[in-house]
Amino acid sequence: MLQFNMSEFMERMSQTKKSMYEKGIDVLLITDPANMNYLSGYDGWSFYVDQMLVVIADENQPIWIGRKMDAKAAQLTTWLYQENIIPYPEDHVQSNQKHPMDFVAKILTQIGQSNRRIGTEMSSYYFSALAYEKLRVNLPNAIFSDASLLVNYVRIIKSDQEIDYMKKAAKIAELGMDMAVSSIQEGVRECDVAANIYHSLISGTTEYGGDYPSIVPLLPAGENTSTPHLTWTDRKYTNNELVIIELAGCHKRYHSPMSRTVSLGKPTEEATEAASVLVEGINSVIEFVRPGVTCEEVEKVWNDIISKYGIVKESRIGYSIGMSYPPDWGERTLSIRKGDLTILQPNMTFHLMPALWFDNYGIEISESIRVTGNGCEALADYKRELIIKDQLHIAL
Amino acid sequence: MLQFNMSEFMERMSQTKKSMYEKGIDVLLITDPANMNYLSGYDGWSFYVDQMLVVIADENQPIWIGRKMDAKAAQLTTWLYQENIIPYPEDHVQSNQKHPMDFVAKILTQIGQSNRRIGTEMSSYYFSALAYEKLRVNLPNAIFSDASLLVNYVRIIKSDQEIDYMKKAAKIAELGMDMAVSSIQEGVRECDVAANIYHSLISGTTEYGGDYPSIVPLLPAGENTSTPHLTWTDRKYTNNELVIIELAGCHKRYHSPMSRTVSLGKPTEEATEAASVLVEGINSVIEFVRPGVTCEEVEKVWNDIISKYGIVKESRIGYSIGMSYPPDWGERTLSIRKGDLTILQPNMTFHLMPALWFDNYGIEISESIRVTGNGCEALADYKRELIIKDQLHIAL
Repeated sequence: MLQFNMSEFMERMSQTKKSMYEKGIDVLLITDPANMNYLSGYDGWSFYVDQMLVVIADENQPIWIGRKMDAKAAQLTTWLYQENIIPYPEDHVQSNQKHPMDFVAKILTQIGQSNRRIGTEMSSYYFSALAYEKLRVNLPNAIFSDASLLVNYVRIIKSDQEIDYMKKAAKIAELGMDMAVSSIQEGVRECDVAANIYHSLISGTTEYGGDYPSIVPLLPAGENTSTPHLTWTDRKYTNNELVIIELAGCHKRYHSPMSRTVSLGKPTEEATEAASVLVEGINSVIEFVRPGVTCEEVEKVWNDIISKYGIVKESRIGYSIGMSYPPDWGERTLSIRKGDLTILQPNMTFHLMPALWFDNYGIEISESIRVTGNGCEALADYKRELIIKDQLHIAL
Repeated sequence: MLQFNMSEFMERMSQTKKSMYEKGIDVLLITDPANMNYLSGYDGWSFYVDQMLVVIADENQPIWIGRKMDAKAAQLTTWLYQENIIPYPEDHVQSNQKHPMDFVAKILTQIGQSNRRIGTEMSSYYFSALAYEKLRVNLPNAIFSDASLLVNYVRIIKSDQEIDYMKKAAKIAELGMDMAVSSIQEGVRECDVAANIYHSLISGTTEYGGDYPSIVPLLPAGENTSTPHLTWTDRKYTNNELVIIELAGCHKRYHSPMSRTVSLGKPTEEATEAASVLVEGINSVIEFVRPGVTCEEVEKVWNDIISKYGIVKESRIGYSIGMSYPPDWGERTLSIRKGDLTILQPNMTFHLMPALWFDNYGIEISESIRVTGNGCEALADYKRELIIKDQLHIAL
């Protein structure tokens, strides 16, 4: 079930160890499920319980430690030898008596790693404050440091195989967006549109299937378009409202997000103008992006455009993407914003997401972008405009 | 957009404050999105960035602190006054320079709460080890304690309105299971079955829509049925294999999970026997469950049955359910297992999930259960058996 050649896994291990060496880390405890998958292949919806991959500087293979009932999934999905898959007993699951990190500390002690320099992912969703405390108490001779994003930064430049998966995901995103645009109309319930979108995203194409995206399709309508993270309800769409669709195609856990905005009926003049500024901004950014420029410089191109129109936007306009698990499809490395001095390189990928939210409405049009050898490309091919569904207009 | 009467929110606040008082907590920092929703109504897919609800023992309203672009969602979905919705600036999002907890600490200091007894949800998915460290450093005069599950335990007994939502979710689960059973057949891709299931779960019924379940539909087939948390692929089903379906209907964030197992072709004798033991076990448990018995006693009923057949099962056979967000639909309070002395009371709800996993296959049949005044009821109504799809048999 491995999704990459062993040589690619070896290269990832080698880059990770190089970074560990530079940061003075002997033992890296990886709890971000995307990082676990990236290095070992491990894939399963088991991240709601404690689990980790242990990378030891002077050992060839990482060690998977997780819940007993998931050990078989580790055997089925990873390249690890059986002896490097270590299950903890079921009575440690969501118990207030026994914590999985007590078990982890015992294993680390047994294999002689308890007094080394240990890196943990302090900002991982799946490494709780309690887990960290338990480790600290059980490993008093270890020297802890924050290794958040260490593996994420190894992931920042994609391999050709990864780009292939992301392009497949982009194709799925196009299908999902087509379904959204055709389903949204007056009198239809939001939940039925969401159901149709999901069907497209999961079914995928006839050649390859879709995987679950790390964020649900976001579908705010009407006044709710003024804020980005509301999910669908079972109300019916009315005429003369905006509907934002933000979704991602996903293939083998790799994501290509995309957003568009649909106007049911003739859009207001201000919405039309906002969409036009947005498209001008996106096109200018895509024109500008190339290896060697910084994220901050990219943001400035955008900001110069909107400033012309008197618009101010505080939030970032993009973030790195690739492999991920819920709750976020971002990779949390580069952000396209002021102060981010990351220099773009070929095969970096990001979601260019320069939405505009106002008091009572918002517009989103976004693209997943790959930096190429001398510029960049949008992974999906979808009309970049405010999509107007005007029944009167159609009738004529 | 409130999903409950204000009196219900007030009662929840009052129970929470009572528990805070008992535990010696003046200020409770709530980061579990289900707990945030339970007390304030807040609902949005924004939990991938730091956010919280602050409950202060001597203040009537909690305070929502979150990302600036989500403040409008807080205004739209909660009962809080505008002045109790406090946004942090966008440059704090996934930044290695500014952390949202620096902002939170500043607010707590400004409003005179920096030297009080502060409870945090140390085992919440959305309160990172780093977030905790930042708070500790910024609030040196506060006394911190672990308030994990404090609100979860307030949630353990459901109101009538909550039960109504869960019954609606159970109806949606039935539809999803029907769709799964009818879609699974030889030559069909797993992803297409998953797509159909999703469509049913999100579309819901004609009277009310479905919400996104906190776990994706789990669909292991063949050897993969021996482990519970593998997700679908795009391979095609073959004849003579088992397929497990574990899904949940969800309505207004309330879940009713259900599992069944389908046999494509005639099942093996051992699978038939395992399913028969499972059904006998579930039925005996449902017969036994009533107010006043402990979780441990419930588990013993199950264990006595499987022991008769020489089967040993280490993992728990159930856990509390209700409102939740990804990555888990469990509420993490009661577990049906040895050592859990929680006494069942009317309107407690749990997923009775006594699956059997063997070396090369597994069987799951599970029910969402509500404890009633004098017994219990399954929330859904679905045939409780190994479902056999034998084409030869059908042809006859």
